[in-house]
Amino acid sequence: MVKALLKEPRSGCPIATTLDIIGDRWTLVILRDIINGKKRFSEFLDSPEGIATNVLTDRLALIETAGLAMRNAYQMRPKRFEYELTEKGRNLLPVLQEVCLWANKYYPETWVAPPSFMEKQNESAG
Amino acid sequence: MVKALLKEPRSGCPIATTLDIIGDRWTLVILRDIINGKKRFSEFLDSPEGIATNVLTDRLALIETAGLAMRNAYQMRPKRFEYELTEKGRNLLPVLQEVCLWANKYYPETWVAPPSFMEKQNESAG
Repeated sequence: MVKALLKEPRSGCPIATTLDIIGDRWTLVILRDIINGKKRFSEFLDSPEGIATNVLTDRLALIETAGLAMRNAYQMRPKRFEYELTEKGRNLLPVLQEVCLWANKYYPETWVAPPSFMEKQNESAG
Repeated sequence: MVKALLKEPRSGCPIATTLDIIGDRWTLVILRDIINGKKRFSEFLDSPEGIATNVLTDRLALIETAGLAMRNAYQMRPKRFEYELTEKGRNLLPVLQEVCLWANKYYPETWVAPPSFMEKQNESAG
């Protein structure tokens, strides 16, 4: 996945270019977790979707390489990191909010995201 | 991919549930094409991203199974189909519009989608 990021984009299309980064089943789920306050590998593993450790390692590397989040070491031996969204990562929030509205409409059994998630503002708003 | 649709969703999360359907590099690119007036297999193949025929076949089956588009035969021997978005598929437009805004901001070399795409209204609006 990270290697895919280093290739040329498939086209100049903004949708294709974005999917070159987040076009998989997991990346936006991890961003959701970081937006909701999770920071650590073990916290992401705990999410109900049950991501595999190797997939999580791969996607976190992709998220960092794409500049969606930064990692900071909070422990040295063994080295462990906490992840924090960048502005670029936070600004995917409107995409996630529209995804939530769509899913709630067509899959009424899905959870309704809390106002703290749905009403959070894009940084470029206003 | 279609088989994956028949499984239980990974969780009740609207984001994870949506990614169970559109969480790949191609599905939203094909929806973009249909929104922009393409209807036929050969037209989707012509798009600049260069989708492989087997991937296109797979994703069109997924798009139909998920109820994002319907297909109608326009030729019988050999049988060929035209695809048309359902309301459910059309209502992914706000997601695509937010993706375009995000990509244009962080990847300024990406194309700016025309007003006919960016200003199209979600059917549930108003």
